[in-house]
Amino acid sequence: MSKPFGFEKPLGMRDTLPLLYKTKDRLRRQMEQDINSWGYMYVETPALEYYDTVGTASSIEEQQLFKLLDQEGKTVVLRPDMTAPIARIAVSTLKEEAYPLRLAYDTSVFRAQQREGGRPAEFEQVGVELIGDGSISADAEVISLMVHVLKTAGLRDFKVAVGHVGYVNKLLSEIAGNEERAAQLRRFLFEKNYVGFRKYAEELGLTTNDRSRLTTLLELRGDSRKISEASKLIKGLEGRKMLDDLGRLADLLEDYGVGEHVQIDFTLVSHMDYYTGIVFEGVNGNIGFPLASGGRYDELLGRFGRPAPATGFGVFFDRLVEAIGTKDEKEASCCILYTPDRRKEAMMKASTKRSKGESVVLQELVGVPDVDPFTERFSEVLYFLGKGAER
Amino acid sequence: MSKPFGFEKPLGMRDTLPLLYKTKDRLRRQMEQDINSWGYMYVETPALEYYDTVGTASSIEEQQLFKLLDQEGKTVVLRPDMTAPIARIAVSTLKEEAYPLRLAYDTSVFRAQQREGGRPAEFEQVGVELIGDGSISADAEVISLMVHVLKTAGLRDFKVAVGHVGYVNKLLSEIAGNEERAAQLRRFLFEKNYVGFRKYAEELGLTTNDRSRLTTLLELRGDSRKISEASKLIKGLEGRKMLDDLGRLADLLEDYGVGEHVQIDFTLVSHMDYYTGIVFEGVNGNIGFPLASGGRYDELLGRFGRPAPATGFGVFFDRLVEAIGTKDEKEASCCILYTPDRRKEAMMKASTKRSKGESVVLQELVGVPDVDPFTERFSEVLYFLGKGAER
Repeated sequence: MSKPFGFEKPLGMRDTLPLLYKTKDRLRRQMEQDINSWGYMYVETPALEYYDTVGTASSIEEQQLFKLLDQEGKTVVLRPDMTAPIARIAVSTLKEEAYPLRLAYDTSVFRAQQREGGRPAEFEQVGVELIGDGSISADAEVISLMVHVLKTAGLRDFKVAVGHVGYVNKLLSEIAGNEERAAQLRRFLFEKNYVGFRKYAEELGLTTNDRSRLTTLLELRGDSRKISEASKLIKGLEGRKMLDDLGRLADLLEDYGVGEHVQIDFTLVSHMDYYTGIVFEGVNGNIGFPLASGGRYDELLGRFGRPAPATGFGVFFDRLVEAIGTKDEKEASCCILYTPDRRKEAMMKASTKRSKGESVVLQELVGVPDVDPFTERFSEVLYFLGKGAER
Repeated sequence: MSKPFGFEKPLGMRDTLPLLYKTKDRLRRQMEQDINSWGYMYVETPALEYYDTVGTASSIEEQQLFKLLDQEGKTVVLRPDMTAPIARIAVSTLKEEAYPLRLAYDTSVFRAQQREGGRPAEFEQVGVELIGDGSISADAEVISLMVHVLKTAGLRDFKVAVGHVGYVNKLLSEIAGNEERAAQLRRFLFEKNYVGFRKYAEELGLTTNDRSRLTTLLELRGDSRKISEASKLIKGLEGRKMLDDLGRLADLLEDYGVGEHVQIDFTLVSHMDYYTGIVFEGVNGNIGFPLASGGRYDELLGRFGRPAPATGFGVFFDRLVEAIGTKDEKEASCCILYTPDRRKEAMMKASTKRSKGESVVLQELVGVPDVDPFTERFSEVLYFLGKGAER
């Protein structure tokens, strides 16, 4: 196999250059401030976790995991998401903390990509987890906070689609008759392959009525009136109870003042197998992928040995930055060029300016191969040149 | 092999819990402010790099690299340091930027550890690289900035040992006669195994004078007078020229106002093979490992195809935090507990407080399994309880 060139990076890996860094840094801090003000506490977890713990709990497809062997011969993975590591923390190092527990994070997650996809294999997520509160108020809180965070970051004109994966599962099982068929239908929904969904529905040998129930599901996207339409499709009491919850959620989101961003969408299911209830996704017209997503996962904590209801969201930070766009954040910056005989003057000038918070490059002339292109990037250039300095 | 328990983490991997996170977050920002004010621009690079590029250029021992195969079957590594990735950026994505180039970073690096060591396998580094300036002023700048950054972070009572690996290499070659012997002597210095060094020096069959030159090297630690003592040990002109540079550096560091922290130490060599000239290390009495280190590496950029002199430092951030210690950074935080009938009042209260920058948890009573331990962690608890709420 040919060796990579020195400048090459592995598939799906990216550099963040200074201008983009400034934008990202500013947005991160604004979002952090928001998240802190809602009482969420940031934690960090390691990049590597055991495959048998966090790796399998994460429900990321096997071929998307970066796997390696550690020094002891155990299989470890680069964390593919943050929900599972935070669940691990909640049941171990933070097990003395009383529930509900509000945690937040801002970190890279890793998912191996195929060459064709052109998608990033390492991407930053900013998110929260609200652990130990099974009430519908908890769902309303995380969705509202997500809306706040996206607005704070400067995103305009976005929608949060809200669905209920529990309801969809009940409905699909009720109609399709077995879990395998329901799973296939759910896969079509996840892929937004509605043609495939309809075709498969026809192949199932259902009654006209049941087939129509399935295809009606595809139209359950819109305002909160869709909830009562959904109610007519399902027979089981459990499914109806879930719709009551969703109705109450819609009311709460109005109370939180985020109603204008919310859309009901019963076609929303997640590829994250651990979601059990209300799921949601932030989308914006300019970008084809969701910018943020989340949902309720009441079974995951149990896998780590301390069962508890939980909900949370993650913002796909790189996509958000892309949707917002980088502004020219070129700060006023100064360069002081000097020759040795005037070094002390130059140092004092730099010191004074830095103490006022200015960004100042202090540069001895002899170290600059070519002065004009070097000084170009600064908004101010001061010269402290003495004898022997010809310009 | 036994499966790990759900709460276990791979060897050398750590969680950062909320209190420590607050301290780290504050220190990171203070250091970032300092580094920005000296005109350094932050960049980010991916966690995974090709083994054949950054992996081999990093001079980290083979068994300390976390290696894996990517989707295309190429060997990739978790970045073991940041100097090599930044060299890669400087010669590729930033190749249009005029030198000198001042870059900074704050990120995790990865080095596999043996079970016995108990050392972290993932640790955070904050550092800078000054690329394209071969002058002694550049060395003085990065050392001074390192001192500033350590002071800003709150470290007191620390020393920066400054040596010259170029001089040591010349001297060892001059005396030992060949590179293999010189390398062995250098290894003893790196391991601070001075007994081994003396013993090996005796076995080399040197003249009394040469043996004495070698053992005198071990005593060259102290103030800048050690530079003239070092000058007496070496014959070659190149080595003497290096000492002149070091002498000028000592003067410059006085001018920068950081002289009180500086010690000359000719026994300082680095395990990083890429260092070529002045090397340095920040140490503090309370902790056995260096808190920061750096040096000049004039050959590394050439390995990526665009030769240029360069120097930089990295702060071992986790060790620095440990040396400083976490303060109790418990902020004033408020919890508002409510029942549904008083939800709107509670929401308004939370909103008002948050808009003033306060951290406020807004919690519906029904979601709290046990009120007393839950409310304990807040400095203020407000109740908006109506009918049906018995406490």
